[in-house]
Amino acid sequence: MLKRYLLAPGPTPVPPEVLLAMARPMIHHRAPEFDKLFAEVREDLKWLFQTRNDVLILAASGTGGMEGSVSNFLSPGDKALTVNGGKFGERWTKLCKTFGAQVTELKVEWGRAVDPQAVADALKKDPSIKAVYVQASETSTAVAHDVKALADIVKGYEETILVVDAITALGVLDLKTDAWGLDVVITGSQKALMLPPGLAFASVSEKAWRLADKAKNAAFYFNFKRERENQQKSTTAYTPAVSLILGLKEVMNILKAEGLEAVFARHAMLATAMREGVKAAGLSIFPQERPSDALTAISAPEGVDGQAVYKNLRTQYGMTAAGGQDHLKGKIFRISHMGYIDSFDVITALAAVEMVIKGLGYPIKLGSGVAKAQEIIMGKS
Amino acid sequence: MLKRYLLAPGPTPVPPEVLLAMARPMIHHRAPEFDKLFAEVREDLKWLFQTRNDVLILAASGTGGMEGSVSNFLSPGDKALTVNGGKFGERWTKLCKTFGAQVTELKVEWGRAVDPQAVADALKKDPSIKAVYVQASETSTAVAHDVKALADIVKGYEETILVVDAITALGVLDLKTDAWGLDVVITGSQKALMLPPGLAFASVSEKAWRLADKAKNAAFYFNFKRERENQQKSTTAYTPAVSLILGLKEVMNILKAEGLEAVFARHAMLATAMREGVKAAGLSIFPQERPSDALTAISAPEGVDGQAVYKNLRTQYGMTAAGGQDHLKGKIFRISHMGYIDSFDVITALAAVEMVIKGLGYPIKLGSGVAKAQEIIMGKS
Repeated sequence: MLKRYLLAPGPTPVPPEVLLAMARPMIHHRAPEFDKLFAEVREDLKWLFQTRNDVLILAASGTGGMEGSVSNFLSPGDKALTVNGGKFGERWTKLCKTFGAQVTELKVEWGRAVDPQAVADALKKDPSIKAVYVQASETSTAVAHDVKALADIVKGYEETILVVDAITALGVLDLKTDAWGLDVVITGSQKALMLPPGLAFASVSEKAWRLADKAKNAAFYFNFKRERENQQKSTTAYTPAVSLILGLKEVMNILKAEGLEAVFARHAMLATAMREGVKAAGLSIFPQERPSDALTAISAPEGVDGQAVYKNLRTQYGMTAAGGQDHLKGKIFRISHMGYIDSFDVITALAAVEMVIKGLGYPIKLGSGVAKAQEIIMGKS
Repeated sequence: MLKRYLLAPGPTPVPPEVLLAMARPMIHHRAPEFDKLFAEVREDLKWLFQTRNDVLILAASGTGGMEGSVSNFLSPGDKALTVNGGKFGERWTKLCKTFGAQVTELKVEWGRAVDPQAVADALKKDPSIKAVYVQASETSTAVAHDVKALADIVKGYEETILVVDAITALGVLDLKTDAWGLDVVITGSQKALMLPPGLAFASVSEKAWRLADKAKNAAFYFNFKRERENQQKSTTAYTPAVSLILGLKEVMNILKAEGLEAVFARHAMLATAMREGVKAAGLSIFPQERPSDALTAISAPEGVDGQAVYKNLRTQYGMTAAGGQDHLKGKIFRISHMGYIDSFDVITALAAVEMVIKGLGYPIKLGSGVAKAQEIIMGKS
C-alpha cells in the first residue's frame, strides 16, 4: 500500500466534502435550483476576489481565462506589454501574438521578480500600450511579481489596463483587486480553490470594460461581454460546468468559514515553514527574491538531478510534486502548499524530500528540515 | 418529498457509478496514472466515434468544440455554408461570422430537416466553399439532419469539409464517421455521454487536417493541431478536466459493455415509445420529418401554453424538461431520452405529460400514451 500525496502546483487535493458535493445527482443549468446556486457563488467570488465587479465563471481551464483576457481587450495591431519571467509569462506573449497584438516583452530572469521601474519605463516610452500582462505568482519559478506596484504605475495611464494571471495566487496571496486597481484578474479552479480543473474565473474592472467596448477580436466561447450580460441574470452564455459549480459552493463555504485573513495567514505560515525547512536541511530555494507562498521551488543540490528527486518522490513515496520546466528541467523541483493543505502536509513533504535526496547520495541530516518546520508551525521561530 | 427527474436535453442524468468515479481523490495530469487513463479513453473514443482518427478532448462545453471547428479550419474571408434549422444551426452562422468567414446560410424551416439537394446546389454554385456546418441532431427542434447524404455530396469536393455538430447525436444515432466521411464531428460530455458538462470532443479527418494547415485564425485554447500533438503523447496542451475524464472512463466501460449497436437500438426504441406514446395520447410531435432519437419535441395542444407544461412538470412533479426556444417558446416543450435513460423513464415522462396537460384543462385520456409506450417496450407494437 502506497498512500498518495498530491503536492503538485495544481490540480491540488480536493476536500472530501467537495468531492461528495460534486457527486450529487446532476441538476439542470436552466432551472431555479441552479439559478440560486449561481447567484450565491457569484456573490462569494466577489468576496474572494476582493472586488465589487462581476467575476465571470467560464467552463475551461485557466488558459481559457487567459485567452479571454487577451481576445476581449486587444484588437489586432494593439500594443501589449508582457512580463515574461517564466513559462506562464511566456504564455502571455504567445497569446498576445496569436491575437495579433504588437508585443513588447519584458524578459525577467527566471527566479527573479519584475522590476516595477522597468514597466514604468516601458509605459513612459510608449504610452499607447493598451494592456500589461503579468503573473501574480509565476508557477514555473515560484516567484511572486509585485502586482500592487505595477497597478500603481498602470493606474497613471487612463487607457492602459493591468491584467493579472492569479491562477496560483488568488486565495493564497492577499490581492486587493479593487483597492489596488487590478483591472483583470484570472484564476482557475484547481489551485487554491481546491476543485478539479475545469473552471476559469475573471474579474473585470470598469476601465477594462471600456477597453473591451473598443476591441475587435474573435471572442465567441470566451466572450466576456456576452457572459457578463448572461451571468448578471444568473445564467451563462453556454452550458456551465455544473458539477464543478456545485463543488465551488462547498469550497466557498469552507473559505468563508476560515475567513480571508486566516486563509492568507495559513498559506504564509505554511510557505515559511517549507522554505525555512528546506534551508535548514541544507538545500536552497530557487527564487532569488519574492518567493510565492503558493509553492516552493527547490534547487537540486550539486550532483543531484532534480528530475530524479521528482520521480523518486512519486515512485518511492507516492508523492506527486513537479519538476522544472524548460531550461530549469533537472535544476529544480517544486512542491505546492496551496489549497487544501495543512502543517502536516508540509512536514510530510519535507521529510520525503530529505529521504529522497539522501537516497540519491547527497549528504543531508534527516529530520533537520522537519524540525525547523515544526518550530515555525508551533510559533516558536 | 418530491423525487427529481432530469429529462432535459443536457445535462442528462449521470449514473451513480460515474458520480462515484468522479468523487475519487484528485490525480495529477502529468503523471503515469493519468497518462494511462488518457490513452485508454482516447482509444475508447475512437470506438465510440467510429473513426481511426484522433478524437481530441477539450476542457470546455460543446460550444468550445464548435468554436474550434470554425477557428481551426477557416481563415478570415473563407467561404462557409451553414445549415440553420434551429438555435444551434444559428450558432454555426454566428461562429463563422465571428471568425471572419463569408457565410452562406441555408435557412431551413424549424421542424424540418435540410434538403440535401439544397446543399448540393449551393456547393455547385460555389465550389470554393471551404466547409459545410450542420447539426446531426438539432436540439432546439428535435430534428435529425441527414448527415450521411450531406457527406456523400461534400465528398465530391476535394477542398471542402463537412463539420457535424453531433452534441445530441453521438452515442444516440449511428454516425459512421469514417465510413460516411464526416470530416469533423463534435460532441459534449453532458448528453449521451452521461457526464456533467465540461468536456468537448472533436474527431478530425485527414482532409480536415489539410485544411487546418492552411487556416489562419486565432486558435489558442482551442488549437486543434497543438492538442493533437500533445494528445498523441497522452497529454494535453492545457490542464485537462481531470475528474470528468475519470468519469469518462467509467462511462466508456458502461457503453462498451452494452455495445454500440445495442446503444443505438435502445435509443431508437425509447424514442419510438415516446413519440408513439405522445401521439396515442392525442398530442402531436413537432418535427415534420426525421425526428431525432435523442429527444422529442411535443407541440403544445390548442389553448395550452408550452411554457406552462414545462413549468408544471417541474413544480408539480419534480421533472426538469425543456421549453421551446425563440419563436417556438410556448409552442413546444421537449423531453430528452438520451444517455442514462430506460423504459420507465419514458413511461414516467409520458405519465407526467398526460397529467400536466389534463391539469391545464386540455382533454386527455390518462394512461393512453403510457399504454402505447408499454406495448412498444414489450415489443408488441
